[in-house]
Formats: sequence, C-alpha cells, structure tokens
Amino acid sequence: MEVQQVLHMNGGVGDTSYANNSVVQRTIITKEMHIVEDAILDLYCMSYPKKLSITDLGCSSGPNTLFVISHIIDTIEMKCCQLNHPLPEFQMFLNDLPGNDFNTLFSYLPDFYEKLKEEKHASLAQCFMAGVAGSFYGRLFPSKSLDFIHSSNSLHWLSQVPQGLQNEMGISLNKGNIYIAKTSPPSVFRAYLAQFQRDFYLFLKSRSEEVIGGGRMVLTVTGRGSLDPPECYSQWELMTQTLNDMVSQGVIEQEKVDSFNIPCYAPSIHELEAIVEIEGSFSLDRLEIIEFDIFTSGRNGAKCIRAVTESLLADQFGAVIMDDLFRIYEQKVDEHLSNKKVNHLALSMTRKG
Amino acid sequence: MEVQQVLHMNGGVGDTSYANNSVVQRTIITKEMHIVEDAILDLYCMSYPKKLSITDLGCSSGPNTLFVISHIIDTIEMKCCQLNHPLPEFQMFLNDLPGNDFNTLFSYLPDFYEKLKEEKHASLAQCFMAGVAGSFYGRLFPSKSLDFIHSSNSLHWLSQVPQGLQNEMGISLNKGNIYIAKTSPPSVFRAYLAQFQRDFYLFLKSRSEEVIGGGRMVLTVTGRGSLDPPECYSQWELMTQTLNDMVSQGVIEQEKVDSFNIPCYAPSIHELEAIVEIEGSFSLDRLEIIEFDIFTSGRNGAKCIRAVTESLLADQFGAVIMDDLFRIYEQKVDEHLSNKKVNHLALSMTRKG
Repeated sequence: MEVQQVLHMNGGVGDTSYANNSVVQRTIITKEMHIVEDAILDLYCMSYPKKLSITDLGCSSGPNTLFVISHIIDTIEMKCCQLNHPLPEFQMFLNDLPGNDFNTLFSYLPDFYEKLKEEKHASLAQCFMAGVAGSFYGRLFPSKSLDFIHSSNSLHWLSQVPQGLQNEMGISLNKGNIYIAKTSPPSVFRAYLAQFQRDFYLFLKSRSEEVIGGGRMVLTVTGRGSLDPPECYSQWELMTQTLNDMVSQGVIEQEKVDSFNIPCYAPSIHELEAIVEIEGSFSLDRLEIIEFDIFTSGRNGAKCIRAVTESLLADQFGAVIMDDLFRIYEQKVDEHLSNKKVNHLALSMTRKG
Repeated sequence: MEVQQVLHMNGGVGDTSYANNSVVQRTIITKEMHIVEDAILDLYCMSYPKKLSITDLGCSSGPNTLFVISHIIDTIEMKCCQLNHPLPEFQMFLNDLPGNDFNTLFSYLPDFYEKLKEEKHASLAQCFMAGVAGSFYGRLFPSKSLDFIHSSNSLHWLSQVPQGLQNEMGISLNKGNIYIAKTSPPSVFRAYLAQFQRDFYLFLKSRSEEVIGGGRMVLTVTGRGSLDPPECYSQWELMTQTLNDMVSQGVIEQEKVDSFNIPCYAPSIHELEAIVEIEGSFSLDRLEIIEFDIFTSGRNGAKCIRAVTESLLADQFGAVIMDDLFRIYEQKVDEHLSNKKVNHLALSMTRKG
C-alpha cells in the first residue's frame, strides 16, 4: 500500500465525510489554541512584519482548518488594536496529501472571505489562501518562506507502513493485529518506532529549510505520556477485534488482517524530544500533554474513525464491507466507553539562527 | 446568474472534461510561448533572483497548466546552464475560480514532480506548487509577492453578465441572441464593452499591487483585430442558432434564450491598449495578434465548447438537454468549418516603478 496515495480523510460533506465528523479534532484544536496564540504573538512582536506566511500542515477538508486560521487572525488583530498597528497581510498555505478533497475545502473560501470582510474592516484584514498538495515528509515550500507552521493531529500518520513487520519468508510478525498490541513481539514496536523516527526527522529537516530564523512551529500529535510501548492506542485495539470478528464470520480473509498494519504511531514525550534534539534546527520551547475523552458514544466514535481511516481500510478490505465493519466497530466502542482517555502531545518550537 | 459561482471548465478526466478537450487552448499556448519565454528571460536576467514566484491565472484543471509551467522551468534552466548559475527555486501559484476541479489538477502533481526530478537533477530544480481559488477580478496574493504573471485564454470571461442588457421594464434588449450579434442594438455592444473595461481595469489594478516593480505579465485573450463590433465571435453565433432551433422544437422556452447572455467579451487591440494606459501601472512592451483555425471538425468543436461552457448553459437551460444541445451544435460547426479563423491577442507588460 502506498500510504501517500491512499490515505485521505473522507471527502465531500456527506454523512461519512470528515467535514461532518471532525468534532474530536476540533476539541484537540480548542485545547491547544492557547499554545498557538502565545507562539504567534511572540513571533509577531519580534519584528512586527507587514506580512505573515503561515501554513497548516495536514489541514484536511473540514471546517477545522478555517477555524484555526480565523483564530490566528483574531489573535493578531487584537494585538494590533492594542498597539494601534495596521494588520499585516496573511498568506495562508493549506497543505494535505494530493488525495485530500481540496475542492470541498476551497468551496468554503468565498463565505470565509465574506465573513472576514464583515467582521474586520475590509481594508484591514487581507488574507490570501493557497492549497498545497503534497507530503509534509519532504519539501513543500521555498527556502525561508514561512513565518509560522501549524500542524494539528496529523504527524502520527507515518509516510509508509513500517518496514520489518514481516520476516525473511514474508510472514507477518504481527499476525492478528493491526497495530502494536500486547501480543505483538518487540520487533513490531521497534519497527514502528524506527519509522516514526525517520519520518519525524525528515519533517523537521524539511521545515527547518522553509521557515525563517526565529520562525515558530506548533504541532500536536496523538501520543502517550509514558515510555511504555504504546499499545494503549485503544481505537486500533477495537478495530483489530472488529476485523477478527469479521474473519470469524468469513467476511474477511485471515491473511488480509495479518498483512495489514495501520501506518500510524503514537510517540512518547521522550521519543519526540530526542528527535527534535538530534535534528537540531529547532529549540523546544514548550511541551504539553492534552488529555481528553475521545468518544462520547459508539455512534460518534465509529463516525469519527470512519471519516479518518476508511480510505486505508477500504483499500485493504474492500469498500463494500465498510458499512458492516463500522456497525460492528460502533458496538465495540459502545461497550468500551469508559476509560477511553487519549493523550495528545503539543509542542511549540522556534527555528534557531 | 452569479458567474463566479457557476462558471467552471468541466472537471474530472471523462469524455466531456476540459482535461481531455483543451487542444485548442494548447494551440494558443504553443503560439504564445515565444512571448512568455522572452518575458521570463528578461525578468530573470534583470537580477538573477534565487526564487521566482509565478502565477498562472485561470489555470483550469487540464494538462495545459503544467505544460506552461514545465516550459517556463525549461527556459530558465537553459539560461542557467549557459551562465553556469544555480537554478532558482520556483513557487508556482495555480489560480482559478473556487468551482474549478483542483482535485484533478493536484492529482497530476506527483507525476509532474517525479518527471521534474528525472529530467533535471533533483538538487537543481525545486518547484513548489500551490492552488489559489478565487476570482482574478480582485486581490489574490500579498503585496509585491509575485515576479511573473501568466494568463492564457481566460480574461475574455467577464466577472458578470453585463448590466444594461434589459430596459427599465426588465425586457431583454438582446432578444434571440446570446452575445453581440449583427441584429443586436448598439446598447448591447456598449454594455459588453463597459463590463469588459471595468473588469480588465480591476484586473490590472489588483495585479499592480501584487507584482514587484519590474515584474512581468503575459496575457492572451480571445480578441478581434479591428475596431468593428465583435459579432465575429462565431462560436456564439452557432450556439445562438442551436438554442433557437431548440426553441422551435419546444425543448427550450423562448424567454430562457432571450434572458441569457454569455459573460464573455472579445476586445479589440485598441480597447485593450486604452485600459492599460488608463490604469497606468504597466508599460505595454509587446502586443501580437495570434490567428488560427479554431476547429478541425464539428465533433472537436462541440467537445471543446462543451468543456468550456457547459456549466453556464446547464445552469440556464438544464443539465438534461446538454447532450442534445451539443449534438445540434456539432452539426452546425460541421456546416461552417470554413472561415472559422479566430484571433487571440497576446500582451506582454512590465510593472512600472
């Protein structure tokens, strides 16, 4: 599976779309917003630039992207009012993989601009949006062309399924699981960690060339608080059970589950810190753990996970069984609604030099 | 009809898509390419910048956009080879209205980047693409952020159907026609010209703020060579006949044709020159007439015009009759294949100051 060609949040604005099922992600964004505010204000007050170039990496196609952007503009506007400064121009780059539904995202823009015009004085707030289709595990922007980088809830997606999840005979080392599970051998954990280390290093290296010296970056990522192997990532555990149920029912072949591993990793604080240090271009100003209850009901949980993972699951198991699969998954989420705390890690960094 | 919400080239990659029916536009681009080459080389050799910010306005969603961009990169690369200079970074902004199929456009990018990597040395050619959804009859980019602007075959589309095509009683002044025709009263010509003047002025004003001093702009537009009223725009004449045939057949109501006017204008050289002079920000370096045979067969003609105008026609007359409409149109193009010369006007300009 070519993750970068297959992975995308569900497009459009229908019942199973990401646009209509991204309340969890909105919660995360709301909880990290004070970190974004502090960082963008620090940056702005460093030199009061006439233009701010900002990117949102892994923006997807829902209303959350424009929510973040509105909030950044509001924050700067309040500061400019206080200081009696003219507002800077904003150039906003919305990034996601080429399979993302940019058409839906762009369809929100006329209303967004109209609202901006009404709320601010038209002559004061100039915001210019652009969509950038490509993987953030590589260069996306010209050298030293960005002031501020934001990425929420995206960097736990790996660039590929980790290598080394099969032995030399091509036999899966992670049979019956789709992520790191209690029953997975240590080599599975090592393979996931190694892939995350490579990917996050490449992410930092790419961004370090694109952002100006003193530029800021705020990232949130699904993570874990401790050093323990991250089998706590419970939505995958329930998905594994769902898939194994469907194997028992004869709907899915065992081999399909054995060979499927979700290209996603929830790092620990120490793993993140170590990679930032090794890459060396950014100083880590702040690291916070954001804990929250992920789902309020099985129905919400299933819709949320479907909007995010359907592209990958349909690619492996076939689109026709998706309705059945998420019906079973919904029941499992309902049965496990207690202790479904999830940790997100928020990092705020400054480009050195 | 809100032109900016309705107008878009046919999306996707199917039989009636713009992507598969834009050979005519490719011909125009090929014929204007020497003007683009000269202008981009002049610009580059003025200061040998490390980065070139370039936009293609009205890019649509076909392969033509990437054809222009490839050619610009090739041109600069050859010059850099001659001079033994490193290649600059290219930041390319692909613009069209929000209804444009950016998803299809972005789906070409992975192959485009791959090809660029193979043809040039990966370390030499860095090209960063972004999509910008919005009307070019207004600001799209931050102040002084562009070096080079290109727009092919787009600026004859008006921002709206001209006002003043009805009298005070709301009765159409252009009954039985959809564009300026031999039988149209002079007020129809004046209304179209006034709308074009307003739009093109606003276009130049917006670009003058976005492009750096000494920056260059190359535009082509469907135009006419002489000062005569532009009823020569023969594809609309044939479309009028088609619609009137369908009125006779009882498929379309007369009133629907009477109230429809295509939001498109083919200016003369002198009309263009006058607006450039009045706006005052650009010096006109070069103006050429590009003459060519528009269609080689009724089939090609109908597919080309369908890819471009279906969004507008379907909005007015209903999507269900489009197949029939273009079958009749195809016959008419076949009957009038001789003397179907069309003029395009190519302008090359420099931002003063």
